[in-house]
Amino acid sequence: MKESFYKYIEQLQDKITLALEDLDGSKFKEDIWVRSEGGGGRSRVLENGQIFEKGGVNISAVHGSLPNSLQEYFGVKDAQFYACGLSLVIHPKNPMVPTVHANWRYFEMYNENHEMVDQWFGGGLDLTPYYIFEEDIIHFHEVCKRGCDKFQKDFYKVFKEKCDRYFWNTHRNEARGVGGLFFDYCKADDDMSIEKWYEFVKEIGDSFLDAYLPIVKKRHSLNYSDENRKWQEIRRGRYVEFNLVHDKGTLFGLKTNGRIESILMSLPPVVQWKYDFHPVEGSEEAKLEAILKEPKKWISNI
Amino acid sequence: MKESFYKYIEQLQDKITLALEDLDGSKFKEDIWVRSEGGGGRSRVLENGQIFEKGGVNISAVHGSLPNSLQEYFGVKDAQFYACGLSLVIHPKNPMVPTVHANWRYFEMYNENHEMVDQWFGGGLDLTPYYIFEEDIIHFHEVCKRGCDKFQKDFYKVFKEKCDRYFWNTHRNEARGVGGLFFDYCKADDDMSIEKWYEFVKEIGDSFLDAYLPIVKKRHSLNYSDENRKWQEIRRGRYVEFNLVHDKGTLFGLKTNGRIESILMSLPPVVQWKYDFHPVEGSEEAKLEAILKEPKKWISNI
Repeated sequence: MKESFYKYIEQLQDKITLALEDLDGSKFKEDIWVRSEGGGGRSRVLENGQIFEKGGVNISAVHGSLPNSLQEYFGVKDAQFYACGLSLVIHPKNPMVPTVHANWRYFEMYNENHEMVDQWFGGGLDLTPYYIFEEDIIHFHEVCKRGCDKFQKDFYKVFKEKCDRYFWNTHRNEARGVGGLFFDYCKADDDMSIEKWYEFVKEIGDSFLDAYLPIVKKRHSLNYSDENRKWQEIRRGRYVEFNLVHDKGTLFGLKTNGRIESILMSLPPVVQWKYDFHPVEGSEEAKLEAILKEPKKWISNI
Repeated sequence: MKESFYKYIEQLQDKITLALEDLDGSKFKEDIWVRSEGGGGRSRVLENGQIFEKGGVNISAVHGSLPNSLQEYFGVKDAQFYACGLSLVIHPKNPMVPTVHANWRYFEMYNENHEMVDQWFGGGLDLTPYYIFEEDIIHFHEVCKRGCDKFQKDFYKVFKEKCDRYFWNTHRNEARGVGGLFFDYCKADDDMSIEKWYEFVKEIGDSFLDAYLPIVKKRHSLNYSDENRKWQEIRRGRYVEFNLVHDKGTLFGLKTNGRIESILMSLPPVVQWKYDFHPVEGSEEAKLEAILKEPKKWISNI
């Protein structure tokens, strides 16, 4: 399973970076890195493109002894692990184009005799707009739902709600963005074998470009003002706060001695922190804030 | 003790904000806030000044039930607490002027019968330059040492080393800045009564302006290039990383439901994250990086 999934994310990284390069006209820079305790990765980062101000599409496969803090978290002792996945974050230049994040990952855990004792998939994708175009958000969620519906009727609802909960910026009492899907600890059960979960993750991974690229194409040439850009940079600050204070993926990377530059490629290129900034009542900026305070159902009748 | 210390930090906030306003020509904005679980504070923040791009000098006094996570940390049950202090962070516009941080705080802990079971002081001050002017750093450390020397011969050495350890950005394997003093859990013992610790904290608090202002006056009119500014903004990213990932003060504030805007006033106004950025070998930027990798003794013969 692990070899097969790693091959999948290798070709998915190729597919996604090619499509983004094609649209932007700029090239990703590739870095191959090795983790001294076992494993490594292939990071691809693009900066100062025509459309994408900063974007990273990284794959990695790391293995070895599970760090103590994570042994405690999982309630195991002397455990070994293998983890691989693809992580991407794209920060467009134009504030009318949303930031996007996606991640698909596979995890195996072994006991002290190197026997596999557990295995699971996780992942998802989510959108962080700076200005609200409802049709874009609905499109994104529809693609998410279409992928889920091929597997189980309640997957979209369940994983959409998990996403809203996970990307909740507790200390700000607001969502990071307008959500999408989030799933974790997807293990074999009566309904879904581990192979079936693999098919599910591939389905969602394969639909990423359909979910995001049409939005970019539609919005990247829109005009924007310095004020729009300032708002984007302030909102990016909230993105930083979530990733550094709350995001388990980032903290997992820091705790397992991952490659810092690959982990922190998620941080936006230019960010502002203004003291006690509030958008004008009734403005487009206030509209975004209201939506983030109370996650919406983007698809009715579910 | 708590009333007396709170009065002290009130007048110290006045003294420091007046001196900074006097130098900059801009005014601090004051916000009085109340914490629903008990206590509140007085925040003063200045933005877009002539010299100071963003600065906050805040006092607060909060009390109530100690949050669970902190009860575990201190190994107590059903504890109540009182905490007050002054926190300041100043981010100058000119990259030749260092950022400075200082904090002086007092803590009391009570058992379920509201009897005080523990009390201590903590605090310190530390400098985060973007370009190295050795004489400035030595001046800052000399003022720190002078204050310490009035109390115990080894205080400067001990608290300077604690400062280097505390402001270590583990995931980057480098210091946040060039240090200063850091002390915590300063409790009454044979050498130092709690009253004596109070005198010590006042001594250090009173010397803050002597430590920092001469540096600002000397450097704020120096010329700088766009490249210097870019370097400052990139280094400010490390400041954000330290504060959000590692800083106990920030996390204490978030856990005790402090006022978010007062806690996060420490975050710099404009920040950049470039992927895998490294300064040119032999440059002034590389010189700073080398110093942060290996904290120096700024005063010889100690």
